[in-house]
Amino acid sequence: MSAGHYFEDFTVGERIVTRGVTLTEAAIVDFGQQFDPQPFHVDATAAAESPYGGLIASGFHTAALCFRLFVDQGRLADCSLGSPGIEQLRWLAPVRPGDTLHAEVEVAAARRSGSRPDRGLVTLDYRAENQHGDTVLTMRIVHLLGCRPAAGA
Amino acid sequence: MSAGHYFEDFTVGERIVTRGVTLTEAAIVDFGQQFDPQPFHVDATAAAESPYGGLIASGFHTAALCFRLFVDQGRLADCSLGSPGIEQLRWLAPVRPGDTLHAEVEVAAARRSGSRPDRGLVTLDYRAENQHGDTVLTMRIVHLLGCRPAAGA
Repeated sequence: MSAGHYFEDFTVGERIVTRGVTLTEAAIVDFGQQFDPQPFHVDATAAAESPYGGLIASGFHTAALCFRLFVDQGRLADCSLGSPGIEQLRWLAPVRPGDTLHAEVEVAAARRSGSRPDRGLVTLDYRAENQHGDTVLTMRIVHLLGCRPAAGA
Repeated sequence: MSAGHYFEDFTVGERIVTRGVTLTEAAIVDFGQQFDPQPFHVDATAAAESPYGGLIASGFHTAALCFRLFVDQGRLADCSLGSPGIEQLRWLAPVRPGDTLHAEVEVAAARRSGSRPDRGLVTLDYRAENQHGDTVLTMRIVHLLGCRPAAGA
């Protein structure tokens, strides 16, 4: 059996817990300036007067960071062929400067392709949690993955 | 009637076309390094040998950029209270260095809150298109928006 991680290594029900990462004010404002320059992401003064009461991270920032935490697990490194999309993404609680997030990723479905038996689709449910145990984000991503090469191939 | 853009200014069926933006190789690799360090986003040599035949942008990058193009229209500036989430996101075609994207955004639904009549939910269908007219991404985002303040309020 060849080394590495492939489609076959994802088992429905399996749960993967990532390391954590702390979101700094600088990272939040930098991301906001580039991709989501709404006042509550980039302007601490305006954010203080907003319903959020202070700066919060862009939801695109927390979603991408949550994905990064999973990529760092190495499970996609040998087999990822990209993704057709996200089924649903929920931003459930604000993420503030100094918050530390980690992700828990559960394998919701795994299906080998009928037309291309060398690949399969794996559906992963991501849940990001902060240091207080609050769920800040959930998202369901479908990943297109290569299957394990035949021995000697 | 007070100036600015509010919930009431979104009409179901309305279509908003954004400016364009060109994705450079540097921007694609920078984003990949930060949020999605899969080989086909950060390593031109490995990407050339991947099924994509070269570097492509992370889907989180194109999604965030597409959102940025809409934010720059100013329609959220006076009224955005954030977003509960994304209903569905499809990555339909690779985005390569040098590609120029713009977004077309259609108002799919608009509903005033029953419990909080000073706000409403607007559902927007985003579609990003490249310079060849190919649709590279679609996503449906729900936005929580403030309503127009009463005159003299």
